[in-house]
Amino acid sequence: MGEFDFQAGDRVRIYTKAATYEGIVMPRPETGGKEHVTIKLDSGYNIGVLLGAVEKVEKLAAKSEKRQAKSELKFEKGKPEISIVTTGGTITSKVDYKTGGAYPLTKPEELLEAVPELAKVVSVKNIQKPFSIFSEDMTPENWGEIAEAVAKELNSSGVHGVIVTHGTDTLHYTAAALSFMLKGLHKPVALVGAQRSVDRGSFDGNMNLVCAAHYCLSDIAEVAIVMHGKSDDDYCIASRGTKVRKMHTSRRDTFRPINDLPLAKIFPDGNLVVTNTNHKKRTLGKVEADTKFENKTALIYYYPGLSPDILDYYVKQKYKGVIIAGTGFGHVLTQKENKKMEWLSHIKDAVGSGMFVGMASQAIYGTTDPLVYSSARNLQDAGVVYLKDMLAETAYVKLGCVLAHHKSPEEIKKQMLTNIAGEFNERIEPQSFLY
Amino acid sequence: MGEFDFQAGDRVRIYTKAATYEGIVMPRPETGGKEHVTIKLDSGYNIGVLLGAVEKVEKLAAKSEKRQAKSELKFEKGKPEISIVTTGGTITSKVDYKTGGAYPLTKPEELLEAVPELAKVVSVKNIQKPFSIFSEDMTPENWGEIAEAVAKELNSSGVHGVIVTHGTDTLHYTAAALSFMLKGLHKPVALVGAQRSVDRGSFDGNMNLVCAAHYCLSDIAEVAIVMHGKSDDDYCIASRGTKVRKMHTSRRDTFRPINDLPLAKIFPDGNLVVTNTNHKKRTLGKVEADTKFENKTALIYYYPGLSPDILDYYVKQKYKGVIIAGTGFGHVLTQKENKKMEWLSHIKDAVGSGMFVGMASQAIYGTTDPLVYSSARNLQDAGVVYLKDMLAETAYVKLGCVLAHHKSPEEIKKQMLTNIAGEFNERIEPQSFLY
Repeated sequence: MGEFDFQAGDRVRIYTKAATYEGIVMPRPETGGKEHVTIKLDSGYNIGVLLGAVEKVEKLAAKSEKRQAKSELKFEKGKPEISIVTTGGTITSKVDYKTGGAYPLTKPEELLEAVPELAKVVSVKNIQKPFSIFSEDMTPENWGEIAEAVAKELNSSGVHGVIVTHGTDTLHYTAAALSFMLKGLHKPVALVGAQRSVDRGSFDGNMNLVCAAHYCLSDIAEVAIVMHGKSDDDYCIASRGTKVRKMHTSRRDTFRPINDLPLAKIFPDGNLVVTNTNHKKRTLGKVEADTKFENKTALIYYYPGLSPDILDYYVKQKYKGVIIAGTGFGHVLTQKENKKMEWLSHIKDAVGSGMFVGMASQAIYGTTDPLVYSSARNLQDAGVVYLKDMLAETAYVKLGCVLAHHKSPEEIKKQMLTNIAGEFNERIEPQSFLY
Repeated sequence: MGEFDFQAGDRVRIYTKAATYEGIVMPRPETGGKEHVTIKLDSGYNIGVLLGAVEKVEKLAAKSEKRQAKSELKFEKGKPEISIVTTGGTITSKVDYKTGGAYPLTKPEELLEAVPELAKVVSVKNIQKPFSIFSEDMTPENWGEIAEAVAKELNSSGVHGVIVTHGTDTLHYTAAALSFMLKGLHKPVALVGAQRSVDRGSFDGNMNLVCAAHYCLSDIAEVAIVMHGKSDDDYCIASRGTKVRKMHTSRRDTFRPINDLPLAKIFPDGNLVVTNTNHKKRTLGKVEADTKFENKTALIYYYPGLSPDILDYYVKQKYKGVIIAGTGFGHVLTQKENKKMEWLSHIKDAVGSGMFVGMASQAIYGTTDPLVYSSARNLQDAGVVYLKDMLAETAYVKLGCVLAHHKSPEEIKKQMLTNIAGEFNERIEPQSFLY
């Protein structure tokens, strides 16, 4: 590598003017990173060292010896047990030192190679791998498979909680789906992803996994996304599965609670600070996976110029319900004079045909309100159900679940307005805005 | 009102244990607020007083006398001139003291009744009122009308800048539209709304207007939304028209810059702090309104379970282009094995038929990137154009403008990737996340 004689997988000691590092050389990422070498320290953390700053390299062991040594790592028997459901994504990929490619882990012991510090917190009873795909390739059917696997593990004796590893793109959709599908949830479920791959110095999966393990041992019996709370490695936050959204394409602190405070701040040393006392507590019992989902459910994102024909299209396609992500308090164009673009008559027709029409806000933060302006009052009179402060994405997931179980418009409306999994927050703290 | 003998429009002095207030009684809002009275102080600011705390009320003048007095207010001749384009919305509504209803202002003098402190900053040369509608009722056609009116005023001699008053629901869409439609913009254009109505103690329109007036006198020749920077009355921020989004349904500091720092912090006393030096400067010249917009442009918000049939629908409807708000770095389901839900073949067909397909991210913050994951690489190979850090809403508006002027796919792609109005930011400051 560079002018020095070492390769990915070797155990080395690297000397720079500023410091000395000892650890395993990681393979180079596919894109970028040609000017530095990444070392996995024994603590499990990765560090990037500029090749230009390297003064000397001591090769302590070649890669084959290192793999031998690593595979002897074992979870300790005395630690509390959790289970893991892996679904693909960067987080539980292991790097093949020969090809540099990433492969999903399947055995508990392999997980320790990537995240040795996990053994200090928990013992892993079982790893389930229902499938392995990018999270952007997920469908509601996958949500059901994950829910089944999680329920099975949660009901397994001795298991304190379950970690689901998952790509980050649609992690919040899955979090909402599990929140609604896991009926009678009595233990913690932590969804975890990584924004940076395991071969990079900024890999976040290790700390996220450790914090997720701590969450699984907590008293909070809710589905939560557990990932970085800040861009540095200070702490993770656990955000309620129905009130969370991916807010940045690349930052490690991308998952932010919306209209809600995080359930907890979790430090890698195990210090768990409950930041939102309004949560369900761990109980005895049994969880049931209720995975039915109505695929004829849609989400429409409104914008000026969007023709109401799109609603007619969904009616024609026999959709059972739509969520509109309207503007502001929950609006679309309703001006009667604009016959070509007004939505009111189309909404009346849709509701008349038996379709459920729910309203969320594309402003993301804050709550919809049909009483402030006349346009929303007219929409409500036409049958639109205003979904308070529920996220549009959560509303879509919830509607798919509700429509699969109920046929009567009154019952559907009632269910959509019932707080099933913390999707409504009656008292939104001001500091939750842009938290 | 309550047990006291006064009504909306009266000039009163109200005594409470804590303080004494003198001003005009405002009409009660349509919803809520039955337990307090709102007084417009002579400073222009409103204050709400709990009726239960009122000890004594002195009626200084009945409502008819007050209106007489107010209408004598005049803009001072010596102040620098600006023009105003009013389009409806709460901000420039006056309250009729008889009916309590809100009506749009049409004369410069009437504006002074609501915002007397404006006269200390500027003189208003002209007020244009192309139409008066809720902003949720806006269409791209309206954007063109506003652009025409703004251009006319900007080209009028002596006018330093133009304020556009507008409802807040779609203010950011209009801001993006004006950014692209005002070719050769050489003076400041400030878009202003109000989140609270003029009859409420928390009315924000006055401070927003005053700060917008200061912005019009600045050296920044860009379209910006000028509204509260924080929830209190400390200062406003001017956010670039192509990099701003309504992020809260009700808060006064709802408009936040995205992937960009605000252009300036503006204090009501006129102190304008430039917070982003990367902006166009005021020049001599003439602006031209180029208002052509292709209505066959769509924005598709992706989510797990969204059938690619929606793309076929837009192709059949002969749409010229779509923006997809994909997940993460800009993804949709591309897994080949999922024949019913994979988007790749549909996108190939759409691009093959001559449709432009652009990719933005629903994560809002951060930048799309087709090179990190193979799914995006495949989408790019199929012809999807990745639109860097451009907001999905801005990309939709820009695409409508570009498609109205260009036919060749190469030229459309080139235009969409050219930084025309600050829609791309090459260097995103970390502190702009959740600013």
